[in-house]
Amino acid sequence: MTVTVAATQMACSWDTSANVEKASRLIHQAAEQDAQIVLIQELFETPYFCIDEQSKHFDLAHTLEEQPTIKHMQALARSLQVVLPISYFERAGQAYFNSLAVIDADGEIVGHYRKSHIPDSPAYEEKFYFSPGDTGFQVVQTRYARIGVAVCWDQWFPEAARVMVLQGAQMLLYPTAIGSETADPTLDSKDHWQTTMRGHSAANMVPVIASNRIGTEQSQGEEITFYGSSFITDHCGAMLAEADRHTETVLTASFDLAFQHQYRRAWGVFRDRRPDLYKPLLSLDGHSD
Amino acid sequence: MTVTVAATQMACSWDTSANVEKASRLIHQAAEQDAQIVLIQELFETPYFCIDEQSKHFDLAHTLEEQPTIKHMQALARSLQVVLPISYFERAGQAYFNSLAVIDADGEIVGHYRKSHIPDSPAYEEKFYFSPGDTGFQVVQTRYARIGVAVCWDQWFPEAARVMVLQGAQMLLYPTAIGSETADPTLDSKDHWQTTMRGHSAANMVPVIASNRIGTEQSQGEEITFYGSSFITDHCGAMLAEADRHTETVLTASFDLAFQHQYRRAWGVFRDRRPDLYKPLLSLDGHSD
Repeated sequence: MTVTVAATQMACSWDTSANVEKASRLIHQAAEQDAQIVLIQELFETPYFCIDEQSKHFDLAHTLEEQPTIKHMQALARSLQVVLPISYFERAGQAYFNSLAVIDADGEIVGHYRKSHIPDSPAYEEKFYFSPGDTGFQVVQTRYARIGVAVCWDQWFPEAARVMVLQGAQMLLYPTAIGSETADPTLDSKDHWQTTMRGHSAANMVPVIASNRIGTEQSQGEEITFYGSSFITDHCGAMLAEADRHTETVLTASFDLAFQHQYRRAWGVFRDRRPDLYKPLLSLDGHSD
Repeated sequence: MTVTVAATQMACSWDTSANVEKASRLIHQAAEQDAQIVLIQELFETPYFCIDEQSKHFDLAHTLEEQPTIKHMQALARSLQVVLPISYFERAGQAYFNSLAVIDADGEIVGHYRKSHIPDSPAYEEKFYFSPGDTGFQVVQTRYARIGVAVCWDQWFPEAARVMVLQGAQMLLYPTAIGSETADPTLDSKDHWQTTMRGHSAANMVPVIASNRIGTEQSQGEEITFYGSSFITDHCGAMLAEADRHTETVLTASFDLAFQHQYRRAWGVFRDRRPDLYKPLLSLDGHSD
């Protein structure tokens, strides 16, 4: 029941085939280190185009069926026998989503998720591009583990993490693009970002794997320096592996899923929940009726 | 809008008046350091009697109206002009609860909470003594801040933290009694415990204040060494102050509540929640219908 996972981080340019090639190289490196589930960061085919609002960027979206990078990654997954959650910009009819396809180790797509929580702040203008996802949270049985997959801003929400673990996730994976804030250049959210996800790991007693972008990207006067710091926790929120802010990296860690299951069960948290008291969570304003 | 809070920790014996005197001394010390809200640990009037199951210990319980330590603390709160959340063993009709009274800076009781989540494991035999609380989570307007108050095991549940902040809590306070595990002497949950609550702080963008017991207590072959490590976080889950595992301590920290409110609002998490997707939280098994 041991599984090895990898988190990766890389810089992206407007040369999509170079980005995909780089991601493929990192996946190869991870597989050489015995990783069975390899996480690539959010929207790695291009720069983080949500840095501003340009209608031409809708042209970057593809339907799941016609997505060329996913087809490439299906072949790679099959060849290396690895599970690949792949983030992409999805077009579906008149709607656009920030989506993720889960490719199993045989190359088949076994899960599909549309980012539920959509951020919107200076240089993170995602509400211009994406509708809030309509799939609900997704737990996907893959060859090596049942994985909970969510995307970037989702990682700030304890509700999402809890739902995925209640529904059987043995680990949570978050592809991400986060860095500096043009609204406040003095603000560094790196520790806040890590602490929030370490909290999901500790409270739910599952590992968390996060892959974030590196590099500086600019557009029309906006600039973001993505802070990397990709990481993997154990089942108590402790850091097992952590990348720095600027280096292309492959991190790996191994888990004994049976041990973690027993630990989670013995600790008693999932026995003692009080759903009768949680009704206010189903509102935005905290009302309880 | 600046408020100063204190977390404390102390060892307890079977001499109740000595315990109450010690707690009062710590409250005096905190007030001398300008603390306006002072947290004393869980069930500080006695040793942690839940270390085993003895029916005679039900005699330790009092009704809220007749609780002598709360009357003492009301006078102390009025004299020092401090807010005191006071943990006690409550008898109410035929029922027994692990409860907490919030005493405002004028000595009035302005809030009352019954611990919602009740643990049960070797040497933490709380289900023998306490019914799960029936008050729901409590946010109490005090002279200096709106405080969310919960007790020990509650601190492991992201749902409780989120509900309290949705309902207006500007900080979360947790009196606690946790230490070694007789079921597994090699297990040290200190970091797990802190990481979980730092996660509540980071995800909800409010300070967390936790006061834990110190000292070794024994009964009928059971033994717990309580690990202290009381702490105060900022609004992003960063440690502002932390006690060691064995020293009687008063920690203080100050917050700008207006700044924290603005930070929380600007970050956007409470704008982007998806209550339509959180229905599985209202079940124990994660079902969504």
